[in-house]
Amino acid sequence: MSDFQSWVASHQHDFEDVLRRLLPQGDTEPQRLHAAMRYSVLEGGKRVRPLLAFAAGELVNADIERVSIAASAVELIHAYSLVHDDMPCMDNDVLRRGKPTCHVEYDEATALLVGDSLQSLAFQLLAGHCLSDDPARQMEMVRLLATASGSRGMAGGQAIDLASVGRQLSLPELEQMHIHKTGALIRAAVLLGAYCGQPLDSAQLEALDRYGKCVGLAFQVVDDVLDSEADTATLGKTAGKDADNNKPTYVTLLGAAAAQQMAAGLHDEALAALAPFGEDAHRLRELADFIVLRKF
Amino acid sequence: MSDFQSWVASHQHDFEDVLRRLLPQGDTEPQRLHAAMRYSVLEGGKRVRPLLAFAAGELVNADIERVSIAASAVELIHAYSLVHDDMPCMDNDVLRRGKPTCHVEYDEATALLVGDSLQSLAFQLLAGHCLSDDPARQMEMVRLLATASGSRGMAGGQAIDLASVGRQLSLPELEQMHIHKTGALIRAAVLLGAYCGQPLDSAQLEALDRYGKCVGLAFQVVDDVLDSEADTATLGKTAGKDADNNKPTYVTLLGAAAAQQMAAGLHDEALAALAPFGEDAHRLRELADFIVLRKF
Repeated sequence: MSDFQSWVASHQHDFEDVLRRLLPQGDTEPQRLHAAMRYSVLEGGKRVRPLLAFAAGELVNADIERVSIAASAVELIHAYSLVHDDMPCMDNDVLRRGKPTCHVEYDEATALLVGDSLQSLAFQLLAGHCLSDDPARQMEMVRLLATASGSRGMAGGQAIDLASVGRQLSLPELEQMHIHKTGALIRAAVLLGAYCGQPLDSAQLEALDRYGKCVGLAFQVVDDVLDSEADTATLGKTAGKDADNNKPTYVTLLGAAAAQQMAAGLHDEALAALAPFGEDAHRLRELADFIVLRKF
Repeated sequence: MSDFQSWVASHQHDFEDVLRRLLPQGDTEPQRLHAAMRYSVLEGGKRVRPLLAFAAGELVNADIERVSIAASAVELIHAYSLVHDDMPCMDNDVLRRGKPTCHVEYDEATALLVGDSLQSLAFQLLAGHCLSDDPARQMEMVRLLATASGSRGMAGGQAIDLASVGRQLSLPELEQMHIHKTGALIRAAVLLGAYCGQPLDSAQLEALDRYGKCVGLAFQVVDDVLDSEADTATLGKTAGKDADNNKPTYVTLLGAAAAQQMAAGLHDEALAALAPFGEDAHRLRELADFIVLRKF
């Protein structure tokens, strides 16, 4: 196992414990809702957003407890979006991370409340722990996550996605969709990790944000490539679904080779944005490699 | 028009303008989502929660701009819960405030995203404006609203509600449901209004919280009484629905007369909690009267 691989494994392991602790226990009322929340968050996912937050936190010597809370808030927003996205009125997906989706395992009404409650919990965590010596900066973190999640961020991207089904999108339109749908939260993960530590100047924050933007978009391009290539078993979710649904993807729009090339370009751009940070940014660099070169 | 009635009318009118300003404009992308958000929030409702926040704000000489933001955040949480609650997988209601519900006027996927986005916007507003001279106190406001909204607050109450369909609930169980489902957010409205002004001591905050708890429960009891008596046209939503759905209500459990009596008892208790505040609490007193004596 490389140094990076063990860094990932160790953070994934510890982060799972953090989530187990922060989520309401399954034996507290309302039990079914709490059990379904835990089902939807625990034991699943690569935890890409938390890893980005941890790597950004290391860049600024942030206290790991603080970063863990910020990372949890981001991951809960991500988890809520998956639960709602899988529902019959959205993507109607039955499989997620190799398990039945929340509305299949429980029921639709519970899945709706799980998503709603996970979003509330994200803000409860961000506001309920000390994440910065300066409360005004912490307030900025809340604002940042809320904006990244809402109608001009992630949820807005999903609305653009809905509107795009069966329609031919241009490349800039597809990019707009993904910058919102997956990009906004990935950028927030990087910035929230960074906000937990030594204050950065605006040029540094902007560089980190550019890194987050490129990595976020690359993540989606690679997702589309993998989705077009992989089978369901490898992916742990229903494969080839976007193309089946007549949803535009980077692969259907550009072809697999050009999509790969686009991911490589974004990868380069992400690394270039990190240049001013020197060796301190090595985990963020390794994560960019991981995101672009991953096979699952 | 009494002094109280004109106070209500004036605040309702001004608050509508505040919401119009704070909600994303319908011509900004994604337009359909933003239009649906405005449709679901504007021109509707008695704005009971905002009125409670304004009355609590007056008690502590709070700046009205600050209270407007806090009241908006609470009302957006309330509006999101109605949109999701009306969806086919929950109450499957087609009429709300005399208009087609969001998923009927738009579609289910949009209604899902509307609710999700309204919740995010609530926290974006709370964190994006200065609501207190002390940022730590403002952070406490965010935590308070998130807790009131989540699985141990409003959403948790809805989960208890789901679990109760077709089952005989005891009076304490019904109370637990409503303390969460409607009570938590009403209490939060009172406290958030109060947090915008001169700091109160813990005994005063506790008294206000007791007031909010009694008013919140009374609100629900009166709702059940009105629902059992009124017809759909007067109510602006489908009448008699809870009884039809075999959902327990205070009327089915206690009978109409005892339910009325219970509301009167809660009313008295709410007024008693306000006693230490003297004349300064007169709007909160009038609102308690209004909530218990209303006919719609």
